[in-house]
Formats: sequence, structure tokens, C-alpha cells
Amino acid sequence: MEKIQLAKYEIIVGDIKKSLPGFLQKHSYSKIFVLTDNNTTTHCLPLIESTLSGFSWSSIQILAGEQHKNIETCQSIWQQMMEAGADRKALAINLGGGVIGDMGGFCASTFKRGMDFIQIPTTLLSQVDASIGGKLGIDFMQVKNSIGLFKNPQAVLIDPTFLSTLSFAEIRSGFAEIIKHSLIADIDQWKQICQIRDITTVNWAPIITPSLLIKKQVVEEDPFERGLRKALNFGHTIGHAIEGHALESDRPLLHGEAIAIGMICETFLSHRILGLSKTELENVSRYLLSVYDSYPLQKKNYPAYFQLMKNDKKNEDGKINFSLIIPLGEAVVNQTCEKELIEESLDYYNGLLH
Amino acid sequence: MEKIQLAKYEIIVGDIKKSLPGFLQKHSYSKIFVLTDNNTTTHCLPLIESTLSGFSWSSIQILAGEQHKNIETCQSIWQQMMEAGADRKALAINLGGGVIGDMGGFCASTFKRGMDFIQIPTTLLSQVDASIGGKLGIDFMQVKNSIGLFKNPQAVLIDPTFLSTLSFAEIRSGFAEIIKHSLIADIDQWKQICQIRDITTVNWAPIITPSLLIKKQVVEEDPFERGLRKALNFGHTIGHAIEGHALESDRPLLHGEAIAIGMICETFLSHRILGLSKTELENVSRYLLSVYDSYPLQKKNYPAYFQLMKNDKKNEDGKINFSLIIPLGEAVVNQTCEKELIEESLDYYNGLLH
Repeated sequence: MEKIQLAKYEIIVGDIKKSLPGFLQKHSYSKIFVLTDNNTTTHCLPLIESTLSGFSWSSIQILAGEQHKNIETCQSIWQQMMEAGADRKALAINLGGGVIGDMGGFCASTFKRGMDFIQIPTTLLSQVDASIGGKLGIDFMQVKNSIGLFKNPQAVLIDPTFLSTLSFAEIRSGFAEIIKHSLIADIDQWKQICQIRDITTVNWAPIITPSLLIKKQVVEEDPFERGLRKALNFGHTIGHAIEGHALESDRPLLHGEAIAIGMICETFLSHRILGLSKTELENVSRYLLSVYDSYPLQKKNYPAYFQLMKNDKKNEDGKINFSLIIPLGEAVVNQTCEKELIEESLDYYNGLLH
Repeated sequence: MEKIQLAKYEIIVGDIKKSLPGFLQKHSYSKIFVLTDNNTTTHCLPLIESTLSGFSWSSIQILAGEQHKNIETCQSIWQQMMEAGADRKALAINLGGGVIGDMGGFCASTFKRGMDFIQIPTTLLSQVDASIGGKLGIDFMQVKNSIGLFKNPQAVLIDPTFLSTLSFAEIRSGFAEIIKHSLIADIDQWKQICQIRDITTVNWAPIITPSLLIKKQVVEEDPFERGLRKALNFGHTIGHAIEGHALESDRPLLHGEAIAIGMICETFLSHRILGLSKTELENVSRYLLSVYDSYPLQKKNYPAYFQLMKNDKKNEDGKINFSLIIPLGEAVVNQTCEKELIEESLDYYNGLLH
């Protein structure tokens, strides 16, 4: 087992059958609530049930999917906790992907003004990204994560075994954040990662840990997203807009699939605005295109993309905010540019598809 | 103006027309939202409108009353903030009593993961109690404050001028917390307070500040209610249950009216469990009965009271938790007792009414 010590809690990468009992034995909780969705109830809960057998525990199940990450689901979770007699000395275990972690953490942090919670992320995306950083919340009025708070879990327990329950598309989606972490902060990891040709045969444990360390370092230096943490938004200004628009279309994209396109466009912006070399731009683009499917961006959708970029909660003074890279492995935050150049970056991506 | 400096913010007692501009000039907020209810819109908002004229501000009004302190009202507040384009650099001003302060603080702290807020308490109850200590929240499933969090405001601005807008019943309700503060922490203040025969002629400013100082001291020593802060719950274990039950009845009680009954019952428990003298018990009971109306507790409601006490978030291991007093002016936390003794304390209160 590998331990990553953060200022206020630790992340343990390794066998959940060892890390979870280790955590529980160090604490004494009055009750344990395991939050699952219909997928993790089937595929993940059985892996921890034997560990829980000595404790007073129950599970709370919600429906899987971002569309259920809302205040109505929170009310159902709070109600079940209330009916089961949860008190402040209870523990919530969030067993699932980003939706479970974000919403379960929010519900636990606000139930009776706060009970402890731990994250057991079961998707690659949440293992390297969502489970760390203390950002909790739900969607409201179709705006992602617009209600929430910052609060750290008591621990994050990561077991790559859970990844075997995921589809290829989900693995590939999570892989985009690993690529992003390397591009904004670790040139050596980037050099290793861009050698990976077949993501179905990867041994993930040695890749997850360094990726986690990057995220840990960034969020610890800027826990409340005042500056540096914006580096993590590389690929996300354009990527989020494409993702949001695709959600409403007949060809929705997973988060990482959209971020991969966003990273290509924003590497182009890094080339044009900051002088990132053409070779570096081509290396990044070529690799991302080798992993992710083509997704032609239609000219008629460009205005909708801009509208979505303008609504981004990271903007200030009405300007679209980018986090870019130069050289590979280093990020530069708070970049802006003209609308025309953003259009050129979308054209650049389209041009690569022929 | 009198300033009470806490570790992370300050409480200013004095003319709101001076304290509010003083605060706003020290900060630069993108927008200001003033949360009011139908009472404070009429009686209190006019006192601060001229101060706000140079700022981009709007008001959000909710219906007055504890029955609206729920997640549905939060959704309406969040929606209005969203529609007005609030960002994380906006400020919420909570202008009203405890409901406005608790719920407005909760909404501000969770909107886009947290905007600043200040408390301008306009009732005696909130001026001496609810506005200090960082406890925010709403009622859920008839359990008071069961969803919420701890977060401090940027400032608390207290102006006794607002009290002239209150009814006799509301003043009397707030007075119960002043009595409580003296009973748990300041025998000298108790001796002064129990001389007050007519609360309609009191000059409140010199009474509010020492009462605030007691609360400040207790919450600063124990911000997250791990131990000492529980002293503030004196009268509240039984009082909350009676209040919660009365809410659903045809004779609802104001918070302080219920807490006054709770203090009588829990002073009885202090006598029986801790040996508080009979004279002290009688002094406290007699004074409280001289100020507050009789409210016979019906035997048939006792089971409902117990159920509410059992759901209290301060309980641990399923035991009902009390904060008691011995001698007058000092509190002892984490006391428990048998159900029968709690019943006796309710009977004791009823016995005083004949």
C-alpha cells in the first residue's frame, strides 16, 4: 500500500480490504453509511462488505448518473440518514464515481452540520481527480456544481481493482485527466504516458500515484481556487463547452473525451499565444487523436460553444479565462484571447481529422 | 460604537448607518444581496437603503417564520442569486432574525461553494444568540437545524434601534437567551437580570453586550461544539422538543418561550442529578414563570417529546444529552438520565402552574 499524506488527511493507494479496515480501526464511529449507486451496489459493494461486517452499517443507494446529482437526491439521502438515526459521530463512505463523491460529501458535510466522510472512488476519473481537493457539491438549475462547499474527507482510499468493473470508454475518459496532469506539471510523466498505445492492458497503480501527487500538490498550494489551482483547468474551458453542448445533442461525450478535444484546442492556443513550439503542439495533438475518437466540431455550433464558455464560473470581468501550457509540463494561468483565435483553435482541431 | 473582536471577524454594536458603510468601504464586492422577510422588508430595510445606494444591490425576500426555514426556501434563494448573476465575489447581507441569519448564511456558504455574508440581526434573540458562533442551517423533517454547517460571517452588525420594531412576545423570546447566558456563565449578570420586572422599559444596549461576550467566549473556546460549547444547550434539550412539537399544534411557541420551559425542567434535572439546591431551583423557576406565560404540557404528548429529544443532533450513542447548571452561573455538560426523570421534570413544570 502506498500512502500519500496531505495536510489534513491521507490518500491510500492499494488493496481496499486492507486500507478500509485500517482506517476504521483507528476511529470509532457510531454508525457507517455506505452511499452507492445502482452500479456500485452490484460491482463494488461486495468488495467491502466483509470488512464492514463487525460494524453497525447500512447502505443508501441512489440512481447512477449526473442527472441525479441534484437537491432532490440530497433530500432523499438526508432523509435516509435521519430515519436510520445518524448522528454526528457517524461516518459516510462514498463508494462510486465523481457524482457519488461530490454529492455524498456534500450531504455528509451538511447533515447535522457535518459528519465525517471518506471517499472510495471507483472510476479512473474520480481516482485521479474528483476525489481529491475537497470540492463537494451538486448541480442546480443546470449549472454544474453550483451548490456546494469545500471540505476535506477523512481519507481517500483508492484501489485499482475497482477499475476492472469499468467500460473501455470510462477508462479512456479518466485517462484524459492523467494526461492533463502530466501536461501541466510533469514532463517526465508525459514522456512515459505518450508511449502508452493500448489503454486496455495498462497496469494503472503506478500511473495513478504520480498523477495524484500532481493534483495533491496543486490543491494544497491553493485550496480555495484563488490562483494556481486554475492550472487544473487546462483543456477545460473549451472542453466543458463542448461537453455541455454535446450533452444536449444526439452524440453526448464523456467528460474526458471532451477534455481531450479541449486540450488539443488549448495546446494550439498555447502555441499561438505563448509560443509553445509547433513540434510540441503536434506531439500532443497526435497522441490525443490516437487515443480518442474523432468528433468533428460543426461551424454552426461555434456560437453555442462561445455562449457556454462565457457562462463559465471561472471567468472574471466577462473575459473567457484559459489555463495554458509552455513548455510541456508547465502551466500558465489567467490567459485570455480574441474570439477569432478561439475559432481558429476549433478549426485547427477539425483540420486534424482529415 | 462598541467593537467585539473575535478571532476571524468582528461584532459591532451601534448605529447601523455608521457600521455598515464602514464595513462595505473596507471591501469590494461585485454585487450585494440583501435577504429580508416580509417583516424586515417593511421595518428594517429602509434603515439601510441609503447606505447601499452607491452599490450594485438587490433584495431577496422570503416569507417570515420558522416554517419557511427549509430546503424549498433555500432553492428559491439560490435561484434568485443565480438569475441575478451572483458570483463568488458577491456579498449576502442577512437582515432579520435567526431564520434569516441561519438560512441566509447557509445559502451564501453553499452558493458556488461559498460567497461572503454578514449578519445584521434585527431581533433580540438573534442579536444575543443566533448571529454569533457560525452555526448555519435549516430545518429538515421537522428536526430543527438538522441540515447546515459551521461558517463564520465576515461581520455581525448589531443595532438596538431595530428592537423598537419588535412585538412584546419577540422581545420576551430573546430575553430567554440572555437569562440562559447568565445562568450558565455569569452569576452577577443573573443577579441583575432577575431584578427586571418589566421588560418593556429596558434599555437593551448595556444588557446585550455582556450577554454577547458570554456567547463569544464560549464559542471561541469550542467553535465546533466538541465540548464546552454544549453549555449553551442548557434548557434546549427539552425546550427544543417542546418547541418542535408546538410548531405542529394550534398553540405554537416562540423559541425563547419554549426554552424558558426547558430551563425550568432542566434546572429541576440539575437539582435532582447534580444537587443544585432547592432554593436555587425555586428562584429560577419563580422568575421564569413571572416572565413567561403558562403552557401546560399534556401527558399524551410526552412520547412525542421523547421522540424529538432522541433525534437531537447533540446526542451520542442514542442517549439524550443535557447541559445542566451547578451552581447558578456555571454549566456542566454531557449529562444523561433515565426517561422517568425527564418525565418528572415535565411534571414538575406542570405542577408549578397550579
